[in-house]
Amino acid sequence: METLFITDKLKDLLPKIKAFVETELYPLETTENLAHNFSFVEPILQEKRALVKKAGLWGLHLPEEDGGLGLTLCEFGQISEVLASSPFGHFVFNTQAPDIGNTELMHKYAPKHLKDKYLKPLMDGEIRSCFSMTEPEFAGSNPTRMGTTAVKDGDDYIINGHKWFTSSADGAAFAVVMAVTNPDAAPHKRASQILVPLDTEGFKFIRNIPIMGHAGDSWASHAEVIYENVRVPQANLIGMEGAGFLLAQERLGPGRIHHCMRFIGIAERSFDLMCRYAASREMAEGVMLGEMQFIQGFIAESRAEIDAARLLVLRTAKNIDEQGAATVRDEISMIKFFTANMMLRVIDRAIQTHGALGMTSDILLSYWYAHERAARIYDGADEVHKTALARGILKGYGLDTRKK
Amino acid sequence: METLFITDKLKDLLPKIKAFVETELYPLETTENLAHNFSFVEPILQEKRALVKKAGLWGLHLPEEDGGLGLTLCEFGQISEVLASSPFGHFVFNTQAPDIGNTELMHKYAPKHLKDKYLKPLMDGEIRSCFSMTEPEFAGSNPTRMGTTAVKDGDDYIINGHKWFTSSADGAAFAVVMAVTNPDAAPHKRASQILVPLDTEGFKFIRNIPIMGHAGDSWASHAEVIYENVRVPQANLIGMEGAGFLLAQERLGPGRIHHCMRFIGIAERSFDLMCRYAASREMAEGVMLGEMQFIQGFIAESRAEIDAARLLVLRTAKNIDEQGAATVRDEISMIKFFTANMMLRVIDRAIQTHGALGMTSDILLSYWYAHERAARIYDGADEVHKTALARGILKGYGLDTRKK
Amino acid sequence: METLFITDKLKDLLPKIKAFVETELYPLETTENLAHNFSFVEPILQEKRALVKKAGLWGLHLPEEDGGLGLTLCEFGQISEVLASSPFGHFVFNTQAPDIGNTELMHKYAPKHLKDKYLKPLMDGEIRSCFSMTEPEFAGSNPTRMGTTAVKDGDDYIINGHKWFTSSADGAAFAVVMAVTNPDAAPHKRASQILVPLDTEGFKFIRNIPIMGHAGDSWASHAEVIYENVRVPQANLIGMEGAGFLLAQERLGPGRIHHCMRFIGIAERSFDLMCRYAASREMAEGVMLGEMQFIQGFIAESRAEIDAARLLVLRTAKNIDEQGAATVRDEISMIKFFTANMMLRVIDRAIQTHGALGMTSDILLSYWYAHERAARIYDGADEVHKTALARGILKGYGLDTRKK
Amino acid sequence: METLFITDKLKDLLPKIKAFVETELYPLETTENLAHNFSFVEPILQEKRALVKKAGLWGLHLPEEDGGLGLTLCEFGQISEVLASSPFGHFVFNTQAPDIGNTELMHKYAPKHLKDKYLKPLMDGEIRSCFSMTEPEFAGSNPTRMGTTAVKDGDDYIINGHKWFTSSADGAAFAVVMAVTNPDAAPHKRASQILVPLDTEGFKFIRNIPIMGHAGDSWASHAEVIYENVRVPQANLIGMEGAGFLLAQERLGPGRIHHCMRFIGIAERSFDLMCRYAASREMAEGVMLGEMQFIQGFIAESRAEIDAARLLVLRTAKNIDEQGAATVRDEISMIKFFTANMMLRVIDRAIQTHGALGMTSDILLSYWYAHERAARIYDGADEVHKTALARGILKGYGLDTRKK
Repeated sequence: METLFITDKLKDLLPKIKAFVETELYPLETTENLAHNFSFVEPILQEKRALVKKAGLWGLHLPEEDGGLGLTLCEFGQISEVLASSPFGHFVFNTQAPDIGNTELMHKYAPKHLKDKYLKPLMDGEIRSCFSMTEPEFAGSNPTRMGTTAVKDGDDYIINGHKWFTSSADGAAFAVVMAVTNPDAAPHKRASQILVPLDTEGFKFIRNIPIMGHAGDSWASHAEVIYENVRVPQANLIGMEGAGFLLAQERLGPGRIHHCMRFIGIAERSFDLMCRYAASREMAEGVMLGEMQFIQGFIAESRAEIDAARLLVLRTAKNIDEQGAATVRDEISMIKFFTANMMLRVIDRAIQTHGALGMTSDILLSYWYAHERAARIYDGADEVHKTALARGILKGYGLDTRKK
Repeated sequence: METLFITDKLKDLLPKIKAFVETELYPLETTENLAHNFSFVEPILQEKRALVKKAGLWGLHLPEEDGGLGLTLCEFGQISEVLASSPFGHFVFNTQAPDIGNTELMHKYAPKHLKDKYLKPLMDGEIRSCFSMTEPEFAGSNPTRMGTTAVKDGDDYIINGHKWFTSSADGAAFAVVMAVTNPDAAPHKRASQILVPLDTEGFKFIRNIPIMGHAGDSWASHAEVIYENVRVPQANLIGMEGAGFLLAQERLGPGRIHHCMRFIGIAERSFDLMCRYAASREMAEGVMLGEMQFIQGFIAESRAEIDAARLLVLRTAKNIDEQGAATVRDEISMIKFFTANMMLRVIDRAIQTHGALGMTSDILLSYWYAHERAARIYDGADEVHKTALARGILKGYGLDTRKK
Repeated sequence: METLFITDKLKDLLPKIKAFVETELYPLETTENLAHNFSFVEPILQEKRALVKKAGLWGLHLPEEDGGLGLTLCEFGQISEVLASSPFGHFVFNTQAPDIGNTELMHKYAPKHLKDKYLKPLMDGEIRSCFSMTEPEFAGSNPTRMGTTAVKDGDDYIINGHKWFTSSADGAAFAVVMAVTNPDAAPHKRASQILVPLDTEGFKFIRNIPIMGHAGDSWASHAEVIYENVRVPQANLIGMEGAGFLLAQERLGPGRIHHCMRFIGIAERSFDLMCRYAASREMAEGVMLGEMQFIQGFIAESRAEIDAARLLVLRTAKNIDEQGAATVRDEISMIKFFTANMMLRVIDRAIQTHGALGMTSDILLSYWYAHERAARIYDGADEVHKTALARGILKGYGLDTRKK
Repeated sequence: METLFITDKLKDLLPKIKAFVETELYPLETTENLAHNFSFVEPILQEKRALVKKAGLWGLHLPEEDGGLGLTLCEFGQISEVLASSPFGHFVFNTQAPDIGNTELMHKYAPKHLKDKYLKPLMDGEIRSCFSMTEPEFAGSNPTRMGTTAVKDGDDYIINGHKWFTSSADGAAFAVVMAVTNPDAAPHKRASQILVPLDTEGFKFIRNIPIMGHAGDSWASHAEVIYENVRVPQANLIGMEGAGFLLAQERLGPGRIHHCMRFIGIAERSFDLMCRYAASREMAEGVMLGEMQFIQGFIAESRAEIDAARLLVLRTAKNIDEQGAATVRDEISMIKFFTANMMLRVIDRAIQTHGALGMTSDILLSYWYAHERAARIYDGADEVHKTALARGILKGYGLDTRKK
């Protein structure tokens, strides 16, 4: 706990959640569970969800009106860190991406009929959802280029497009699809967000894309899909027509905090595993691994970097809470590359400390090593955020590079 | 080709091998093959082996008396690089670890009856083998601590022990096992290398250890095994009793070159993939990825680092060829950590350049990212080699840290 | 200003101090001043000190009873950052090391007669002082080894020893000298701190040690000195006999914050210079330096790293304020290496951005590049702090490395 | 000695030169000499020059027809490394920049009357010269932008311009000046190289620019100068009119090797100092600095990096010797940033190893730390070379970024 950002709510909640995660979820980190697809462990996770509800810890991310605790972003971020210390934490608490993002989005912008039909069961953990934005043909670092279209036909949209990295589509009830509805508008005003039930005719699930050799399945998967003349009512529009990017960007602030605090939770747990091993592994008669300066260097640098990253992210969360995301754009860029790179360095050092064991699924680290490499890519690659941040700063010095 | 180290033999061989690898093996890098276990692709690789034999390229690593070309280590290293540009290259040419190491070992130290029965079919690619040294209970960085014992009983040894990272044991015909035969000798003279046919009673295959979530199978796997009262004739001893570490160390020089040139082959291919993508991926209308300075930085740094590493390794190979491994111990330590880290940086940059695609098994990079992380661990972790190198250097300055 | 740590006092003070520094001190950063010894610019700095007093900004670091503002460490830290943005800031406000440390020390532990005679004029800026601890013959990373002795003779101590890096001894009125008074006590209880007026017979000023080619002079210098049968009254003892290391360590907490916030001030100013130049330097017709991604990378990474370091240091300051230094030892180690390395990276990037100009004394950066390299060495080298931090952490995991 | 590149000539020469440098020049590395301007030590260096001549080692860089040994670039590079191990080596052997570059240039392109009058005494070490190219108003990374003009007037040129970093102008007999003679030609064909005796009217020596606080003097200085209506005969043209950039680029290949081998010599000597200190400095009773793993890490990484860089540079030198600089442009870019950064890392680690001593002029390292930082800037900043190299590579992949 970082005392600077602790609140009364957290003083009460955090220890409970931490205890739950450690008691109920850490024991699930068996080689078997880590080396199988998600569906293998999913049934037991559903049981754990029931325990979460029983413990009154369900719906932490929801506004009070939806039965949640009305936590600030800064408060929820600190919970998110604890949940992320287990690879199953967010799922068990129903705060997993992309559902949490869709929940926030729909809460604010979905018409009532969509809320009733889709948001409600989503909040209850009865269905899952996905967010369909990235396209293989266009660089993700330039989100205004998009091939998917939604053309009006009577009261409906007819959607056509090819998407990938539609994460968790496998088994999801619906997708929120970004599609160009206004091709003649300014680049940032061309797309809209439309809810598409995945049992709609014309939706084609191509495959779960193998990531580092794993196709994965269910929630833990990244699908390639095709929308071929998919017809949905225009009433499935979320927010206003042409507001797709605006909503995506609005999603960005809180979403960034979610991601970054998850990174920190992973880093913190990796750090804990590293220290445990260093303190208990014997290298030679009576000489422990943790006596090696190289390992001490790993530990010291990791400790400093994790603490620094957490402070940076929570500061940003607090600023978003108090001033709104728009005023702290630079910070929102900054935390992404800083935290993602920190996490990957810490995981890497923890693996190196474990030696051969670190490569195996006998321990959590290799799972994160492989799967979290994406953290420097999705939601804006390092390079995109660095450029964005620098441009924002240089504008304050009179150089507007966007004009060029 | 690095002209400094090119020989007449290579001028002839390298283009042929390169052409074979590019024509016959690169097309096998499909998502399907990369996302499945090795046995999935193995049948087609066996067909390719036949083509290799037909092309007169089989047995490149063998001495002339065994039908090979009698290449120097420096020559074979350059071939090894080309083979490593495909994840299937070494297997198809039967130069894959650990078989190549066992081949070299047995060629020099195995008694004739073992050569006839095991080395011959190994060289012909009819059987595979493994090397059983690492133990989960003892730190690999201190190889003189070992729990496996071989106790004499009549004309036999009775072997008991627990090993893991006995790579490629799955489907292998025999293992070369490191076991303590002389427990009262000095630490470095306690162990011996003994050939154990894997159909011997008491050999227990526990599992293929999941690495980054993949248990793998067949040649591409890392087994945990138990030797429980495994009885083999003392005639299965390779080299002299108590010479186990000596042989392991002798194996080290050439083995290090094999590994490092493989790393360079992987780095070079990753570099090629990075450049191809940078030159062909459009970021915005008419703006190519390769125009970004960040990407240019990745390319330039990678080019310099690969070239530098190759020169370093080939110099060492040449020195081993000319002076023997014993005189260039420091260089043999040096190339390991330098090259392994270089490779991982290049793979990482290549992934970053590819964005989301880089994470997928649609492209080779993610395979290497996950599987080659071990390069900084096996065969001596970075930290072990750095320490060894520094100690060797400091001895020249009058400080003998080993005495302490 | 970091809103998380802003207080009412700071809201009032910081803008005034910032304005003073920018208006009165930045203009002094001429090539001439930067390329000369300190005594060249000292007269004008004395004039500026008068302005500070006039503006009611003198004595910011002092407790209320000494006419100061009774700022917390966290508050003064934020002021320290602003002062450090000019190389003359701390001197002009009389908050420069080592005087600020001696002031704090004497305020707490000096007997009244020393306070009257030495602390009073020190606080008034009428005299300067130095701290004489490091010895060339013994490694600074192991402070319990010390050759300087203070032997009792009647009511006096006779001090003999050889010190260097007795910073600012040139022109100082007195030194606080660490000397072994109790050679038979436990290592940490052998030394005491004794005030030695520098006009005492037997004190020999050997030289100002050239640092990066500059001997420097006056306050900006690092002396080598010899104490040869220096006789001072035992009444010149500060704190108790044998408490030398204890006091040195107590000095450590606040001293660390002073140093680290100074590093941050330097980094922040270097960042500002980098951005200014990037925004205004033309590379080709109409193409500004700041449009280069390499430079954008420098800017973005620096921004994130400075912010992270500041949060880390101010958190530690706050924790010292609230809980005392003893409970946050780990944090106090952590901030040192994290912040010093950050500062040096930022300075380095700023120099690289400036090209040839960055090497010159036409701009501040080269001054800091040369002089602040020491930040990774003095007051505990990186390696010392990393080891200390790791050991502290590992103790929590049951491994007590100090016992070994 | 790197056996791969040793020749018979070097087998004879290198030990002699090494012995000379160690015996005659290392003893000059006193604090006094290192902390004073060059003119302080210059008289004794002139005496050493006489010894060089006496030993038959003068003029190593010259072609045979000029009394030199006709060494290849690769051979001279290896000598250059040895000379660079002392900060006085190159000067004493009269192979110092910029004179060596001017010597090479004039040997090839100067008309006979200039050779007789200027090249001869330059080769004899009787006069010094400088090269006047960089201008404060224009970015050095874009050398085609230039404000200095040479306008024909009768048989003369009238030169006007403002230059800086005209290194060693202080005390030089002449400058080779880059000036625009053909303003209407293509950008790369506008400038010419003209010899200007520095006693010509209108040449104004403004100052030696303080670098890291040192203005320096004589050969070890970097001047700012003005050419105000400087009149010289058109016969002072070196090479053809408009060939200024072509000649500058031709100078580049060999010049790059000189620089990079100098970097390696500095790195190697810094490494030696680091190891010496690590092996001899006691940290605690009987515990030597070199036993610390952190220091071992510094040593091991430095050893690998220096060796790798040397191989890279000598390979390039050999390729220039055999194929000409034009065919290995990419390599010539590559070695610059790779070697300069390597050198600075090694110097930095050596300083860190020395602790406080490393900051002082009692040891060579701090001199290099300050003065060699420029290695990442002059003769093309890192960023320029990385971009150039990447562009060269990407062209091979079909992306011509220069067209844009």
